Amino acid sequence: METPLIAPIETDAVVIGAGPVGLYQVFQLGLQGIHAHVVDALARPGGQPAELYGDKPIYDIPGLPAVTGQALVDQLVQQVSPFKPTYHLAHMVSALAVQPDGRFLLTTHRGLVLLTRIVFIAAGVGAFVPKKLPVPALVPFEGSHVFHHPPLTLDVTGRTVVVAGGDQAALDWALATAANRQTNGVRSVTLLHRRDVIQADAQSLAHMNTLCASGELAFKVGQVIGVTHTAGEPAAMAGLQISGPDGETEALDADLLVVMLGISPKLGTLTDWDLAMARKQLMVNTETFETSQRGIFAVGDIVTYPGKKKLLVCGFHECVLAAFGAAAFLFPSRQTPLEYTSSSSRLQQLLGVVTPSHG
Amino acid sequence: METPLIAPIETDAVVIGAGPVGLYQVFQLGLQGIHAHVVDALARPGGQPAELYGDKPIYDIPGLPAVTGQALVDQLVQQVSPFKPTYHLAHMVSALAVQPDGRFLLTTHRGLVLLTRIVFIAAGVGAFVPKKLPVPALVPFEGSHVFHHPPLTLDVTGRTVVVAGGDQAALDWALATAANRQTNGVRSVTLLHRRDVIQADAQSLAHMNTLCASGELAFKVGQVIGVTHTAGEPAAMAGLQISGPDGETEALDADLLVVMLGISPKLGTLTDWDLAMARKQLMVNTETFETSQRGIFAVGDIVTYPGKKKLLVCGFHECVLAAFGAAAFLFPSRQTPLEYTSSSSRLQQLLGVVTPSHG
Repeated sequence: METPLIAPIETDAVVIGAGPVGLYQVFQLGLQGIHAHVVDALARPGGQPAELYGDKPIYDIPGLPAVTGQALVDQLVQQVSPFKPTYHLAHMVSALAVQPDGRFLLTTHRGLVLLTRIVFIAAGVGAFVPKKLPVPALVPFEGSHVFHHPPLTLDVTGRTVVVAGGDQAALDWALATAANRQTNGVRSVTLLHRRDVIQADAQSLAHMNTLCASGELAFKVGQVIGVTHTAGEPAAMAGLQISGPDGETEALDADLLVVMLGISPKLGTLTDWDLAMARKQLMVNTETFETSQRGIFAVGDIVTYPGKKKLLVCGFHECVLAAFGAAAFLFPSRQTPLEYTSSSSRLQQLLGVVTPSHG
Repeated sequence: METPLIAPIETDAVVIGAGPVGLYQVFQLGLQGIHAHVVDALARPGGQPAELYGDKPIYDIPGLPAVTGQALVDQLVQQVSPFKPTYHLAHMVSALAVQPDGRFLLTTHRGLVLLTRIVFIAAGVGAFVPKKLPVPALVPFEGSHVFHHPPLTLDVTGRTVVVAGGDQAALDWALATAANRQTNGVRSVTLLHRRDVIQADAQSLAHMNTLCASGELAFKVGQVIGVTHTAGEPAAMAGLQISGPDGETEALDADLLVVMLGISPKLGTLTDWDLAMARKQLMVNTETFETSQRGIFAVGDIVTYPGKKKLLVCGFHECVLAAFGAAAFLFPSRQTPLEYTSSSSRLQQLLGVVTPSHG
């Protein structure tokens, strides 16, 4: 095994996956007094519900008759906040190796190294990664001039922005950026799609027409086939080469390309970790949600057991048992009593809340 | 086996227990297209969280950073409402018997008889029943002049009300009734407690002092030892005999006695049903949450299995698997696919909702 080039961050727990189940795992670990680092391939917490169902209501979360994917994620992020997890976002796990002392060395594709006593895999159907344009010339500009599904808070000051994509999410990004030109300092915004049909709701399409008519937003049909850039070091992206609907090639000014082509699941290196699997899912002990490897726990859609249903409500339950399993693993001599957040002053202290007393 | 005197109500499913887990069981059955009758010993849905933690925040429900027991119950009742369950409240199950055709005959202490194909036991730590005053003479007046933990919507028009109890819930009932004398038509309100100390928050105690000073509310120290009533048929309660702090006996006018002495769990007849148990809990198959009796399922705090934690989040998960188990039992030839409420038009039709389309 190679020695990592940089000193690893040492921790008790790493949760892989910042979707709803990963977030609730962090919460349940917090109730056990265990601080967690969280690694996710996406640039923001929320996983599949935030990316795919952000504005769609979910009806089967207990106590929430209707909640959008984004609202659910926002509330989970808030719920987790007392435990101050350390988020490592836009990091894909590239390797996981057991160390001689039993700990795990976890490396991400961007070079982050974590040395941890326990690992929780809450990776859903695998790392949920944005689809990329099949243009290798774009790769050197990722993170400086090319962003995949970035948050709306991305700094666009002075930028000539091209948004590539043709769905609601792509249009939303283009509309929000174009409509706020007074405040965000963007130079121009072009929505680029390979077809002249945008799949979005009527209200957004009307808004698009208004902004296009007033010149705030441009719409172009075509596909990115190349990049132009400055000669400096490092080079700066200056424009895109576009193949139009009739096959003609033209240049388009752009020093910021926002790629909104959707998100696709990718199981990544998970299958390389020598964990017992059945039908591409991790097998777990349903008492502790430990995998076949001591110290590695798994919860959510990535696990299987008799009766397993891939629903958030089931993943949340699994987090509870996994947190108790982890506490027993980390602190074998500690008695972890079952207490209630509504009545336990110990848990309320961990949560940083004070509840009204009656007498 | 005796034949019931009245024709039973025939149904597919009965859920015993209208606490949060029982309510969510009804919801999950609804998603399977199964209508349920719900039986609970208390006069309103909600079970333990509503009765004991009604105004206390719970912090560990996923997606609800802080929610009171009552708010959680209210939201669950709303969530369940599309499936129009039939509630049988203030009914304690007194007998459960397998019929020759495999169905179950369920009888309550008030004579309700249900004939059902499947039963769900979501009874928490047993029927959650209000504590009673140890005064047998009160029994004939229950339901007409004597009420245990009634809802605040109880009709008090023209009544001379005595509230017996010394905690927050008792004081809340007395305060709400006394403060609304202009609208509710109550004649007088007396709070009766065996000691001169009320266990309640400072704000409520100040409110009590204000109402006592203005004569809207009376406070009396003493214990009920007897009843006076009219000679008519049926007799009407006219007053209470009270034993005061120094042992003296006195009369107190009252034609409505609200008993607020708290709630205590009672396992009732559950132990008589020949279901396999371990440590006073029902043993279940964790794939289907079926008990040792085919057709009887159990979820929530009343069940045990390896790793079981008595938390609502775990009970909710159990409801999902029990609903799938029940669907497989009722409709052996039906394939029950796993669908998502956020995307399945079939489930959305069952829920009576229409979600925005993006196409």
